[in-house]
Amino acid sequence: MSQPLKLGIAGLGTVGRGVVKIVQKHADLLEKRAGRRIVISAVSARSRAKNRDLDLSAYAWEDDPVALARRKDVDLFIEVMGGSEGPAKDATEAAIAAGKDVVSANKALLAHHGQALAEAAEAKGHVIRFEAAVAGGIPVIKALTEGLAGNEIRRVMGVMNGTCNYILTRMESAGLPYETVFEEARQLGYLEADPNLDVGGIDAGHKLSLLAAIAFGTKVSFDAVELEGIGRISIDDIRRAADMGYKIKLLGVAQMTGRGLEQRMTPCLVPADSPLGQLQGGTNMVVLEGDSVGQIVLRGAGAGEGPTASAILADVIDIARGTRLSTFGQPAATLAEPVAAKATAPAPYYLRMALTDKPGALAKVATVLGDEGISIDRMRQYGHADSDAPVLIVTHKTTRDAVNHALSRLPATGVVLGEPVAIRIESV
Amino acid sequence: MSQPLKLGIAGLGTVGRGVVKIVQKHADLLEKRAGRRIVISAVSARSRAKNRDLDLSAYAWEDDPVALARRKDVDLFIEVMGGSEGPAKDATEAAIAAGKDVVSANKALLAHHGQALAEAAEAKGHVIRFEAAVAGGIPVIKALTEGLAGNEIRRVMGVMNGTCNYILTRMESAGLPYETVFEEARQLGYLEADPNLDVGGIDAGHKLSLLAAIAFGTKVSFDAVELEGIGRISIDDIRRAADMGYKIKLLGVAQMTGRGLEQRMTPCLVPADSPLGQLQGGTNMVVLEGDSVGQIVLRGAGAGEGPTASAILADVIDIARGTRLSTFGQPAATLAEPVAAKATAPAPYYLRMALTDKPGALAKVATVLGDEGISIDRMRQYGHADSDAPVLIVTHKTTRDAVNHALSRLPATGVVLGEPVAIRIESV
Repeated sequence: MSQPLKLGIAGLGTVGRGVVKIVQKHADLLEKRAGRRIVISAVSARSRAKNRDLDLSAYAWEDDPVALARRKDVDLFIEVMGGSEGPAKDATEAAIAAGKDVVSANKALLAHHGQALAEAAEAKGHVIRFEAAVAGGIPVIKALTEGLAGNEIRRVMGVMNGTCNYILTRMESAGLPYETVFEEARQLGYLEADPNLDVGGIDAGHKLSLLAAIAFGTKVSFDAVELEGIGRISIDDIRRAADMGYKIKLLGVAQMTGRGLEQRMTPCLVPADSPLGQLQGGTNMVVLEGDSVGQIVLRGAGAGEGPTASAILADVIDIARGTRLSTFGQPAATLAEPVAAKATAPAPYYLRMALTDKPGALAKVATVLGDEGISIDRMRQYGHADSDAPVLIVTHKTTRDAVNHALSRLPATGVVLGEPVAIRIESV
Repeated sequence: MSQPLKLGIAGLGTVGRGVVKIVQKHADLLEKRAGRRIVISAVSARSRAKNRDLDLSAYAWEDDPVALARRKDVDLFIEVMGGSEGPAKDATEAAIAAGKDVVSANKALLAHHGQALAEAAEAKGHVIRFEAAVAGGIPVIKALTEGLAGNEIRRVMGVMNGTCNYILTRMESAGLPYETVFEEARQLGYLEADPNLDVGGIDAGHKLSLLAAIAFGTKVSFDAVELEGIGRISIDDIRRAADMGYKIKLLGVAQMTGRGLEQRMTPCLVPADSPLGQLQGGTNMVVLEGDSVGQIVLRGAGAGEGPTASAILADVIDIARGTRLSTFGQPAATLAEPVAAKATAPAPYYLRMALTDKPGALAKVATVLGDEGISIDRMRQYGHADSDAPVLIVTHKTTRDAVNHALSRLPATGVVLGEPVAIRIESV
């Protein structure tokens, strides 16, 4: 183990720069822990001329990440470019074909092509690790793949997109509408070039699909994730939910139900006094539930140069130490084809609607709910002096199907104004 | 890797039984994840006759754990007996001498003899892992040794004795004095046979010393841990601290200061709305701070059959997969001799004292504090209608030495009734 481990880093954006900085700053510390030197042989990025405030003079430069991936002086290919297709995919495939280990921060690539990439790497005895792809600096891939390996996993949950959590908590604390805070977030540089990756739940959905594969021993199935973004959450929803003791989070949930693997990345209500409910701003939180360990909660920075680079280095040091794990915790070829279940796990729902100021209006709504087998746990009716005179209902456990049926029948009652809102309440 | 990994389990108390149950229940799942069968060859406990509600008929029995540790059909010795000396130590040494890997839940043994055991094991190319020894089911050893291996660790904190946290939160919620809740805890079986291991902070101090060794690359130095138990915390302290926005926790803190490694396991005040402040009952929480990753918070069950056995299995599966790490994250022979610093890291302090009902009493106290360089951040004085008419003071950052000097000078002022209380406020 005295040979140095030679890195090739493809991508010198925020994360790539962070990795270079750690390798430069902590060379001796890393060697002490890894048992060998960790050195950078070569780097690659779109523009060589760009000023990055880094001394890259000791490293070979490649314009083409594929060429970087194939270099003889690279043992380990680090992919921190991003994008599910194009250069990131080409270079990762080239690295695997050339017999390199791979460390990736690319959740999109892995969510779409992780199975094929893992099978290819494992067929050659090489590894792909991706701690940095999920929840930034939180060592959640490690916790799930290794720390909880003795458990049958019951459920995985997480707030894994800091931008969405920033928007939701900022809407509440500042009393601002979604559109205003969205614009703030854009100006602060918190949003991806395609903001729908964030606010549409896609980025967080990628992450959830990777956790689900490890948790349940199934092939990554991002297409089966039920996705709903935060664009329809109003400041009213946030305020009224708070009145009932809840916070609204873009919450990912993966669980194995009797009918298959359910994966959701949707706005949910969680108790305001739960760890998830208390999560403010851009911080991430992942909750892992196992049959022996019970509930483990992990919290930390989900993005940023330092935290994401820290996760990359964890994978690099693992590989330097000789730790060689299957990408998804068991050989990719043995992962099961998941049966996708949608909206089968029952839950209480929060309903908000405005009613006409007529006698019996509420009774008509209650009748529709009752017809669909939905019983009411708690209800709060605001006076018509209130601007939108809403009725808030927390139901007992029911299914999304029943809720959807009930909602579709409400217009015919003639007592509901506008569009009712229904949000799942996840028990955490 | 097709050979099964053969376990010898010494100890069939809560944890040992939990390990047997998981190996029996999840044989196929473990094999899928570990890449090989995990089987139990032999077990050992004090009494063979005891009814354990387990089918042990397939395993060889040894009355003597040392004999178990030496068996040819044991690859991996699991020590879940406990105790820093005697059979646990003898058997662990025997296992190492016989060339076995060791997985241990024994914080006392490792806190006192971890350095020697690790050196002996590593000299023979064998590993000792101890995830179960710290914070039960929370994979904190893994997070620190591996997940944050790219970081210079700044500080490690934790509530790592569930019994103490149960007592403190129960005192607050039920308004009961320490003695009453202590007795409740004893009757619930929450206390060790020697309760001072819990309420004296010794058990949690053992855990802290192990985390500190990994975090700072220093030899385990339990003797250098500043220990103070919870026995002197009164319901008044808890109530008055709450008035000022704090909770009292038995908090472990390890940090490298300019003057050396500071390790404390003492009652501290933490903000009531922080993750540590919100921790209720027997749950554990560990906070890891690294230069790149920032702050990572891990929360989960710190004890119990399932959680502790889950941690044992994590180590077992690591070893089955071929992961071979140094006990403390770098070879034991390379760990530095720590320079112990005591009470050097400055912090704000919370002071509570009762004053005589005389003009100028408070001014005299303020003068003493000022003479010691202690400035007051916030103060609250209760009327003498209040039973104990206390004055609560939150200071700006100062040192324990300055606080001790000030406290020693207070009696001479003639205005302080009884013993003043001073508790460090840890910024979390």
